[in-house]
Amino acid sequence: MSTFGNYFRVSTYGESHGKSVGCIVDGVPPGLQLTEDDIQPQMSRRRPGQSALTTPRNEKDRVEIQSGTECGVTLGSPIALRVMNEDQRPKDYGGGGANIDNFPRPSHADWTYLEKYGVKSSSGGGRSSARETIGRVAAGAIAEKYLRVAHGVEIVAFTASVGPVKLFPETREHPTASNNPEFLKLINEITREKVDEFLPVRCPDSKVSKEMEELIGEYRDKHDSIGGTVTCVIRNCPSGIGEPCFDKLEAILAHAMLSIPATKGFEIGSGFGGCQIPGSIHNDPFIKAPPVPPGTQPKPGHERPRLTTKTNNSGGIQGGISNGAHIYFNVAFKPAATIGQAQHTTGYDETEGILEAKGRHDPSVIPRAVPIVESMAALAIMDAVLAQSARQSARALLPPLPEVVPVQMTANRLTNGMK
Amino acid sequence: MSTFGNYFRVSTYGESHGKSVGCIVDGVPPGLQLTEDDIQPQMSRRRPGQSALTTPRNEKDRVEIQSGTECGVTLGSPIALRVMNEDQRPKDYGGGGANIDNFPRPSHADWTYLEKYGVKSSSGGGRSSARETIGRVAAGAIAEKYLRVAHGVEIVAFTASVGPVKLFPETREHPTASNNPEFLKLINEITREKVDEFLPVRCPDSKVSKEMEELIGEYRDKHDSIGGTVTCVIRNCPSGIGEPCFDKLEAILAHAMLSIPATKGFEIGSGFGGCQIPGSIHNDPFIKAPPVPPGTQPKPGHERPRLTTKTNNSGGIQGGISNGAHIYFNVAFKPAATIGQAQHTTGYDETEGILEAKGRHDPSVIPRAVPIVESMAALAIMDAVLAQSARQSARALLPPLPEVVPVQMTANRLTNGMK
Amino acid sequence: MSTFGNYFRVSTYGESHGKSVGCIVDGVPPGLQLTEDDIQPQMSRRRPGQSALTTPRNEKDRVEIQSGTECGVTLGSPIALRVMNEDQRPKDYGGGGANIDNFPRPSHADWTYLEKYGVKSSSGGGRSSARETIGRVAAGAIAEKYLRVAHGVEIVAFTASVGPVKLFPETREHPTASNNPEFLKLINEITREKVDEFLPVRCPDSKVSKEMEELIGEYRDKHDSIGGTVTCVIRNCPSGIGEPCFDKLEAILAHAMLSIPATKGFEIGSGFGGCQIPGSIHNDPFIKAPPVPPGTQPKPGHERPRLTTKTNNSGGIQGGISNGAHIYFNVAFKPAATIGQAQHTTGYDETEGILEAKGRHDPSVIPRAVPIVESMAALAIMDAVLAQSARQSARALLPPLPEVVPVQMTANRLTNGMK
Amino acid sequence: MSTFGNYFRVSTYGESHGKSVGCIVDGVPPGLQLTEDDIQPQMSRRRPGQSALTTPRNEKDRVEIQSGTECGVTLGSPIALRVMNEDQRPKDYGGGGANIDNFPRPSHADWTYLEKYGVKSSSGGGRSSARETIGRVAAGAIAEKYLRVAHGVEIVAFTASVGPVKLFPETREHPTASNNPEFLKLINEITREKVDEFLPVRCPDSKVSKEMEELIGEYRDKHDSIGGTVTCVIRNCPSGIGEPCFDKLEAILAHAMLSIPATKGFEIGSGFGGCQIPGSIHNDPFIKAPPVPPGTQPKPGHERPRLTTKTNNSGGIQGGISNGAHIYFNVAFKPAATIGQAQHTTGYDETEGILEAKGRHDPSVIPRAVPIVESMAALAIMDAVLAQSARQSARALLPPLPEVVPVQMTANRLTNGMK
Repeated sequence: MSTFGNYFRVSTYGESHGKSVGCIVDGVPPGLQLTEDDIQPQMSRRRPGQSALTTPRNEKDRVEIQSGTECGVTLGSPIALRVMNEDQRPKDYGGGGANIDNFPRPSHADWTYLEKYGVKSSSGGGRSSARETIGRVAAGAIAEKYLRVAHGVEIVAFTASVGPVKLFPETREHPTASNNPEFLKLINEITREKVDEFLPVRCPDSKVSKEMEELIGEYRDKHDSIGGTVTCVIRNCPSGIGEPCFDKLEAILAHAMLSIPATKGFEIGSGFGGCQIPGSIHNDPFIKAPPVPPGTQPKPGHERPRLTTKTNNSGGIQGGISNGAHIYFNVAFKPAATIGQAQHTTGYDETEGILEAKGRHDPSVIPRAVPIVESMAALAIMDAVLAQSARQSARALLPPLPEVVPVQMTANRLTNGMK
Repeated sequence: MSTFGNYFRVSTYGESHGKSVGCIVDGVPPGLQLTEDDIQPQMSRRRPGQSALTTPRNEKDRVEIQSGTECGVTLGSPIALRVMNEDQRPKDYGGGGANIDNFPRPSHADWTYLEKYGVKSSSGGGRSSARETIGRVAAGAIAEKYLRVAHGVEIVAFTASVGPVKLFPETREHPTASNNPEFLKLINEITREKVDEFLPVRCPDSKVSKEMEELIGEYRDKHDSIGGTVTCVIRNCPSGIGEPCFDKLEAILAHAMLSIPATKGFEIGSGFGGCQIPGSIHNDPFIKAPPVPPGTQPKPGHERPRLTTKTNNSGGIQGGISNGAHIYFNVAFKPAATIGQAQHTTGYDETEGILEAKGRHDPSVIPRAVPIVESMAALAIMDAVLAQSARQSARALLPPLPEVVPVQMTANRLTNGMK
Repeated sequence: MSTFGNYFRVSTYGESHGKSVGCIVDGVPPGLQLTEDDIQPQMSRRRPGQSALTTPRNEKDRVEIQSGTECGVTLGSPIALRVMNEDQRPKDYGGGGANIDNFPRPSHADWTYLEKYGVKSSSGGGRSSARETIGRVAAGAIAEKYLRVAHGVEIVAFTASVGPVKLFPETREHPTASNNPEFLKLINEITREKVDEFLPVRCPDSKVSKEMEELIGEYRDKHDSIGGTVTCVIRNCPSGIGEPCFDKLEAILAHAMLSIPATKGFEIGSGFGGCQIPGSIHNDPFIKAPPVPPGTQPKPGHERPRLTTKTNNSGGIQGGISNGAHIYFNVAFKPAATIGQAQHTTGYDETEGILEAKGRHDPSVIPRAVPIVESMAALAIMDAVLAQSARQSARALLPPLPEVVPVQMTANRLTNGMK
Repeated sequence: MSTFGNYFRVSTYGESHGKSVGCIVDGVPPGLQLTEDDIQPQMSRRRPGQSALTTPRNEKDRVEIQSGTECGVTLGSPIALRVMNEDQRPKDYGGGGANIDNFPRPSHADWTYLEKYGVKSSSGGGRSSARETIGRVAAGAIAEKYLRVAHGVEIVAFTASVGPVKLFPETREHPTASNNPEFLKLINEITREKVDEFLPVRCPDSKVSKEMEELIGEYRDKHDSIGGTVTCVIRNCPSGIGEPCFDKLEAILAHAMLSIPATKGFEIGSGFGGCQIPGSIHNDPFIKAPPVPPGTQPKPGHERPRLTTKTNNSGGIQGGISNGAHIYFNVAFKPAATIGQAQHTTGYDETEGILEAKGRHDPSVIPRAVPIVESMAALAIMDAVLAQSARQSARALLPPLPEVVPVQMTANRLTNGMK
């Protein structure tokens, strides 16, 4: 089913070359100020045609709210969002003597969609198009607005590598970025504004960004493509979110990220590099949390935790549950499957031949993936926050536990009145 | 919720030190021959106490079927499975002057469970215990049996690295194992029997396995721990499984894997290494599928696809849908959080101090993680297979499409009668 | 959540006075021929303004498919449907000195929506409007088309009572219609065409229909409203659908029906009247099923059951599972809450007063409820059919059970090869 | 799936003649004091063998908590509950020359289970046994405890009719009990203790109860059975619960009730009788809510609504959402299908014959249905309460809306600060 989330549930629809694409977002808290202006910025960041490095499709991708708000305030009912498909040029994919209709495109979804559904749409891979991500980004913008207003959550993603060019290459000292002070400083401070200063590649370092731009340019000129990684940080995430056992917060984030087209990997906190560090170093000891700065006192029931961790190899999640520290993760994107080069392959009719594609393609999807990663992160966090809200508010109505309960004594003393 | 899957739904229960642990498995196809003997082998492979390298807890972990079968045949009703907690020694964690009750264990779930629930159980992290995985393995064994009998699916996992010791280290030529012929040969042939010849580490290479064993031994002697990675291959998975857009097969697998305690990363096919390969090489061209060997003709409606891919950087999944090729992926496990060393940390009461743990611990969870990875893979695949079965059988009842439908012509011709 | 179904999942959106209303239908089998022309007829039957008895709102309610089909064939991807709100006259509800904004309308949803969401929309009860049912009817038309094409299912509803005027009044002999031969004959034969011959009330009996029409006219003239009941029959429903224990087929139907605005009751088969019949008479003995007429042989795997029942007090469902006999049920609708009369009530500000409504209202919702009941029935059956398809096709891949299984022997012999 | 609820999710397992029956309850708020003693009373009320009118099976039905609590306090993790099947006498159903194995029992689930699953269990209808309801009652007791402690909710059911003997027969003046002052007085005051004074039939009126007892006795003596209705009232239900559009509170209650074995109908508030009352009388005008008695001030965020209704034909629910008034409904139970009389029917092998059952049967299930109805009501309300808690707590974190929002002005003024 094309649905994500249980409490904040997004259902998307739309193929690349249909009448419109969009989504229904159910579970939006009522009383949130929301207009198209809150949604459009991320739509535009996702939009193709932002530079010479990205595909020249030039849709305006204007989102229209169909329902669920009045006078710029959410009513609590489902919000339908719709974006027209204005720039439909289906011929590009198969016209002019081209032969895309005879060949399933290698590493694209043409063949597997046919295996799955037994029906082939003219746009090939059906909903595997990058255009399908519009609904995610639109819905994610609503989630982000709520998380920011209600909890001060900040979600920022950036390009971490393109091909072999990496912002934080592994070293013997730092087999994972999680114990690299420069990395930790960056994720502590980085903003979307800063990231967008480094367009078109969105890697927040002048030198590395330049290298990446050149590398992508080379692949563009060769009608080839190249992959890379996107790192995302979530700051001010409430503690206590994520559901044992199967819906650990990192599992939900992994699910969300691997559902983005072209992704091949996900790592949280120390990630794959963390496998090389001993437990005695990898473990994050607890320290007393720093005092909350004056003027930023959170609302009752949503206090920051009293303890935090000295290091953060865990990536803000322990036992599947957020601990209030920065959540950060890394997502791998393969090189885009659609390339301008001719490819030797085999057709639907089982005969070999040459596929020459002529569509509009990205030599690297990484820069445009940045807002998509942010949006899926917002959807994952939002759903988990609402799940925990339900639990906390249910618990808050129970009377304090009696002192005679021995093993809970510590917790008891701490938590009665706290939550 | 402690539930996994929509069509084949597993609900688990049980803390490490409660009366029993277990699960309910709903959606098991009726008419499957099934007894405890089908389940116990994986339970035993998961069981602690298999060697000097693993924790000496010595439970028998005998699974008992409570419902849903009769005369060794599944009825189609929910199957409840139960394993008694026989070897409860809660004092180990806190007794004898130890101070676990005052300190949340670093990088364990004690603190986050308290943040989440406001109640602390005597076993600390509640359901974050490795013992929670018993229900998964039991349920996975049922899924595996069905997949094997109905589709010939084979699922085999093995230890791929421990700390820096890797079975297939990255090289300039092979930045990812997905284009390493030795790796591809291994996943084509490896069996569980072969893997278990390399106990205690379950890395199917004599030399590497030896190195790993020594490394783990070193960490054991230092009362420390070390992480590693587990690779898993799924052979004979039907094509067409996995659901656009949010429930792509790799997203479900990532969700499943990151829900296993202590995991930090997931990569499918070429994974993170694949980011460094150009699209022109990374793309998997189609070739005609080899003829099915005589005597292995699959059942009607479950034919193998007519095309396959020449390379398999995709890891058997394209556009989120299986293509019939081997599915393989890699999972990162952090070093176990529970170590024998004293740790400087901070207590529930916000005062600093030294935590000295004395429980029974694994210096490396990797070998025991092997059957858990297999089980979660089985649950993920089983659920997706049933989803696709529903679709295929629904479609099979529709009449053939008329020839006048132009864009579907190719597909039409191919698929009417095929599915 | 505004979602119905697990396998065939409908998500609706839209308020009475927003930009559009509509839905996303996920899980539609691919390869089904489908255009707006398949959907529009039920939309028009639901539409207001069909006679002097119904509200004069005159929208055209044209449905537009946004996605999920190409060349009139379903692709298997989500189908978004949208109907513009053309005839928005919000002032009618509150304008001209009227005072609807000060008073929550009695027995309408204005007050409870405010209690629930803390935000009041200008149209009062938010999604409790009858216009919300458009998405249900549109989605139901798709389900119906599939059920008809694939299984020959026929769903027909009709008006069974208006106020005290009943098509089949209870008698001592027939405390329930389920043992009334005239009723059984009617549900065996009735068609939608026949029902619509009895517009505006849709009660398929000239005399009773006339009485109802007069009664409704009286209430219209008094600016009052009156309730009634709708009976629905489902013919040719496959046997074996419905899920133990909580999702029994009658439970799903009851859920579906009570989700329609203004419903107050549901009864299946013998219903409330059946409580008065002894078990010895109420029980439906089995008889051999009549031979299938030549030329109507169903598809493999979807044979009609070999046994049927002599009587049908069960209403086609036993133990929550369909047995292949006609499924029939009855739904109670209260008198419409919105009436033209002034009402003495209390305002949002807790002061008493007189509410004078001036909107456009139905004196009886029963005739327009007929297609809504049919649509919800279609959605309920479709979802259950797909659930059972998944199970049957999963089972079909298992080998026959050995003869040595004693208690299943009978079933075994019968079912191996049967399903 | 054998699962009920989304936020408070109950999964049941177990056949009538298996090793045990039970359930997993997920989503129980942490910090609730809970032991087996909270669950056992309803188990015992449901238990067979309470009088000469009910089946003499004599199980003790002792419930054992397997997980999810410690020191009598819920941990927030899944609570597994288990009841052994001690009194297994499978021979009764088929042994001693009886012939149940050749015949599907009329109006029982033997035949439909076989149609559904293609496998026949020795106990015939698999999970359609009344014993399946044990898991529901156990889970319901947990829900009830929470609702009582946190919200003061009271749920009481009683026998309203047996065969034609009714506690509140329809009259011209009172076509529905909803406008009968005696009925309204009863549901205002009735308690479980009072109901159990009228064992064995649980109809709280000496004269009517006597009549019912005699009637059931007659049917018992004739080896026959008789149906009836159970009325249930829910007092102090928080306002604002129930989810538009498909999960209206009455739809969920209907779903819950029709999932109980042997049910044939459901009506809420005025129900079927309400169809005969004009809207001008049926509508429930608003009045100012009476002041809350001193000492019963509810917790912050859970205030009673400021308005209530003068009459209550709505049954406490308007637009699918609770308004804080008493919720009451009526459930129809058919005569039990299993009777002692011989029945002429047809066998699995399609030959006619006589089925003579010899098992232990209830001449009327109504008295034992009372606690089952209460339990399912508790599960339905609990789930809806948690859903609304999630929404309210999410909204509570948003800042007040600005005064400039015109249409929300009234609501705004009222609700900022209220919720």
